[in-house]
Amino acid sequence: MEKDFGLVKLFELYKGLLTEKQRQIFSSFYLYDLSLSEIAEPEGNTRQSVYNAVKQVKNKLLEYESVLKLSQKYQKLGEIAEELKNESNPQGEKITEILDN
Amino acid sequence: MEKDFGLVKLFELYKGLLTEKQRQIFSSFYLYDLSLSEIAEPEGNTRQSVYNAVKQVKNKLLEYESVLKLSQKYQKLGEIAEELKNESNPQGEKITEILDN
Repeated sequence: MEKDFGLVKLFELYKGLLTEKQRQIFSSFYLYDLSLSEIAEPEGNTRQSVYNAVKQVKNKLLEYESVLKLSQKYQKLGEIAEELKNESNPQGEKITEILDN
Repeated sequence: MEKDFGLVKLFELYKGLLTEKQRQIFSSFYLYDLSLSEIAEPEGNTRQSVYNAVKQVKNKLLEYESVLKLSQKYQKLGEIAEELKNESNPQGEKITEILDN
């Protein structure tokens, strides 16, 4: 299974909508960069069941983004924040704070 | 059941995360302002079952907001957009566009 690390950004935005188990499996695969077998073995699971679980979380994250488009919006707002900072406009810093909290 | 129309704002933000049935029941109660009985009768449902369904959607919306805080963030960003427009800074309009899309 190829690891698409662009998903990590979506995970940061939407992890609150996932279950604890979904967060764990995502973190193991994408953040701690474990293999499917390494995740499966300690729990007595099969590689295939972990594969399915990772795929399910991935689809959830893509679904959330397709509906809420937060990654897209936050990126554009981040660019505006940078432009405002370049103009020494204090609203730029405020926008960054709102996006980061 | 008291109708809290502040929920309508949350509905606009998060409706994409609801099921079609949840969207319908929310719209009937909050947007078309029907009573529980008026929603229940044509479908042969009980007033109680509609009450439970409305409550479930309401809880979902509050849960999404507690996790993602979009209503809160968009309000603050909207205020910044207004301030920028008052300064005749074109970034204000851009922020409004991003929030509305």
